[in-house]
Amino acid sequence: MKIKYHLEKKEKNTNARLGKIETNHGTFETPMFMPVGTQATVKTLSPEEVKDCSSGIILANTYHLWLRPGEDIVNKAGGLHKFMNYDGPILTDSGGFQVFSLAKPKDITEEGVHFKNQYNGDKLLLTPEKSIEIQNKLDSDIAMSFDECVGFPHTREYVEESVERTLRWAKRGKDVFNNENQSLFGIVQGAEFEDLRKHCCEELIKMDFDGYSIGGTAVGEPKDMQYKQVEYSCKYLPDDKVRYLMGVGDPIDIIENVIRGVDIFDCVSPTRLARHGHFYTMDGKMNVKNAKYKEDFTSLEKECDCYTCKHYTKAYIHHLIKCEETLGQRLLSIHNIRYLIRLTEELRKAIKNDNILEYRYNFIKRYYKKEIKDKK
Amino acid sequence: MKIKYHLEKKEKNTNARLGKIETNHGTFETPMFMPVGTQATVKTLSPEEVKDCSSGIILANTYHLWLRPGEDIVNKAGGLHKFMNYDGPILTDSGGFQVFSLAKPKDITEEGVHFKNQYNGDKLLLTPEKSIEIQNKLDSDIAMSFDECVGFPHTREYVEESVERTLRWAKRGKDVFNNENQSLFGIVQGAEFEDLRKHCCEELIKMDFDGYSIGGTAVGEPKDMQYKQVEYSCKYLPDDKVRYLMGVGDPIDIIENVIRGVDIFDCVSPTRLARHGHFYTMDGKMNVKNAKYKEDFTSLEKECDCYTCKHYTKAYIHHLIKCEETLGQRLLSIHNIRYLIRLTEELRKAIKNDNILEYRYNFIKRYYKKEIKDKK
Repeated sequence: MKIKYHLEKKEKNTNARLGKIETNHGTFETPMFMPVGTQATVKTLSPEEVKDCSSGIILANTYHLWLRPGEDIVNKAGGLHKFMNYDGPILTDSGGFQVFSLAKPKDITEEGVHFKNQYNGDKLLLTPEKSIEIQNKLDSDIAMSFDECVGFPHTREYVEESVERTLRWAKRGKDVFNNENQSLFGIVQGAEFEDLRKHCCEELIKMDFDGYSIGGTAVGEPKDMQYKQVEYSCKYLPDDKVRYLMGVGDPIDIIENVIRGVDIFDCVSPTRLARHGHFYTMDGKMNVKNAKYKEDFTSLEKECDCYTCKHYTKAYIHHLIKCEETLGQRLLSIHNIRYLIRLTEELRKAIKNDNILEYRYNFIKRYYKKEIKDKK
Repeated sequence: MKIKYHLEKKEKNTNARLGKIETNHGTFETPMFMPVGTQATVKTLSPEEVKDCSSGIILANTYHLWLRPGEDIVNKAGGLHKFMNYDGPILTDSGGFQVFSLAKPKDITEEGVHFKNQYNGDKLLLTPEKSIEIQNKLDSDIAMSFDECVGFPHTREYVEESVERTLRWAKRGKDVFNNENQSLFGIVQGAEFEDLRKHCCEELIKMDFDGYSIGGTAVGEPKDMQYKQVEYSCKYLPDDKVRYLMGVGDPIDIIENVIRGVDIFDCVSPTRLARHGHFYTMDGKMNVKNAKYKEDFTSLEKECDCYTCKHYTKAYIHHLIKCEETLGQRLLSIHNIRYLIRLTEELRKAIKNDNILEYRYNFIKRYYKKEIKDKK
């Protein structure tokens, strides 16, 4: 079965949407934040811990799993769900972002991207067909088309060329796609140029994908530009298909982009920040290594309902992180993932109540400790 | 309340004992293996995971907790149980072994041991009184007397001197001990000299400790010598008090020393080995990094009932350890701890059935894949 997106409600004052996605591995509500399990494990966490955060879906990286352990081993294990003991929905990316951000030197041709294996130096070629073949074998619930993720800054000329290539690659991937239990998303590129985003959306929609991703964000662009990119994409995407904004997970960015019509998000930040001692609170991002927490026998956040906040103090986590004990990273990862998912739960509530702008106003006031001009 | 040791049964053919220890944080059966939570955390595991291995009691290190976060912070948190969210029995060592093995340069005087803080170079002095004061504040269920752990090799002359010092230190510690909810153990030293072990036991028994530890083992001595040291200690210890063999956790050593009358054991090996990819099986110790496990979709050990063996394959754990994902270390730590505790469960059963020598015979045959001469 392909995934089904049900649009349940539109927020009165914005483009925010409340929805539900049915998959072969369960149904979840949107907006939703997706924890990242790069190498078939959400760093430091067990599948049960990920689920206890009320995660609806997780992401795994095609690029990493292609190189280690290899898609054939995952396939022989019975697919990604069985391999990693996770029976909830899983989305795989195309490998495109990683090839562009991690693998150097690279050479982009019409055929695909040539680059060196970061572990053994072997010459590799990732093509749209290969990306789909790998993902078909990984057997995730949702696969991504192979796209070119254009960095920032860039020229309009280059983006024009690149969008056309991304469209040709999307078509090539769709033509070889062969897994009836997997859904395939098209990826909208076009940087900050509305006409290019519009063109890309229109061409992808003609190919009739099961959902649409918004790419070219989280590459170093200013926030205002990111929000514009999302606006220029959502505006031209159909109501009845899910919209996934790739690589974005900053709390305020989740809020701003939900307001612009995004349904799902992913980002490594909650687990990466955890490894450096950072934790989110409604009053801003803190670092548990701060000396003031040495004798702070309260939880990370009073209103949080996560496992960590139920059972552990800042003093203990401060000690663990200082001593480089992995339980510390794990406790912070649980809290940070739960924080972002709790944020999406609150956004869902705000959409139901048609007060998402008020929610944003109050969030910013508290998170950044600053007044903002108005509630719009 | 002080701990209570109940001797339930002696095995017919050996000195092996079946017992039960009551503490303020629960009762557990002996023989028992104790996982080590050096820095107030059993490396990579949550308290729930430690308990799920059927652990009866865990150990925490006084030396490490003294240096980080400091006993006063643990005390302010409400003691070690609250600090680390572990409501089962906890034993603390005296810091003696760590001062001798980790802290260099050191200077042993009658007063105590002078050494440098490994983290900041500060000059420190650990005395029998200080060790007890720290442990009283940590508020573990069972505390250890501060002893001198003599290394291997050594001269009889030095061991003679050292045993007398250890006895004077035991007395000094007992005199300042001040925590009515904590029990205090004396430590038997004397290396491989039966008369010195006997003398040490007799003098400690006069001081009337709540239990007795056997020290001077796991310092590089040959196995035969270790077993002799244990024999020469257990022989002179009272039946109605618990016997704890410090730092020993090799499966065959657990079996041999249970046969000689030991009740509890601790060792960092199950978690340390896990971090390097090793796992125990009844057929010997294996390394999951071995290429043959790359496509092995079976559990670590068929007959194991641990969380890891219930849900994960060698192929997946191979992948995790190769990719340095901490979930891999965690899954192997769970298995290894459960393995050693399962071993003590089987030994308890063998004591009940009076067939521990047969158990040893079969264990050795399978674990080392070699025939042994006879069943005695």
